[in-house]
Amino acid sequence: MSNTSLRVIARVAAKADRVEQVRAILMGVVEPTRREPGCLSYQLLQNQADPTDFTFIEEWASTAAEVSHFATPHISGALRQLPGLLAAEPDIRRYTVLM
Amino acid sequence: MSNTSLRVIARVAAKADRVEQVRAILMGVVEPTRREPGCLSYQLLQNQADPTDFTFIEEWASTAAEVSHFATPHISGALRQLPGLLAAEPDIRRYTVLM
Repeated sequence: MSNTSLRVIARVAAKADRVEQVRAILMGVVEPTRREPGCLSYQLLQNQADPTDFTFIEEWASTAAEVSHFATPHISGALRQLPGLLAAEPDIRRYTVLM
Repeated sequence: MSNTSLRVIARVAAKADRVEQVRAILMGVVEPTRREPGCLSYQLLQNQADPTDFTFIEEWASTAAEVSHFATPHISGALRQLPGLLAAEPDIRRYTVLM
């Protein structure tokens, strides 16, 4: 992994009775995102102690590539489907690698 | 990256006037941790919008390896130094890779 790329950690908190629906929507964005220009890695995780906590760990070649990600059909589609299924707004944080 | 390994995301929130001290302590644990058995990757990040937010992204070969990590001199030493410098308890979450 490069130390100059952008890292993103995005948490998506499902309502307790909507975990399976949220999981299916999030799984559906992984492969198309990995094919986006500038996407260096993109993984979907689920918290072992709290199955409502889905988290993406992302690596992008540039800030521009990550901005473009939000304009893709797969992400805009997911963002339309998710709001009623989530317990909170997605928590998206952008990071620099220190080491 | 393996899909069967354990992923950990650990957030360490520094007090606003202790960011440099916390950063130095956290930087000091990276290289010894990477030499631990079962440590597959270990990166230290800093939030671009909030410099008090330090976050480790970790990959461990097993739960046992990650448990042993807390008994090492570098981590127990850091955990002794950090409490007065932090705005909150470290937030350590363990994840399974969905895809």
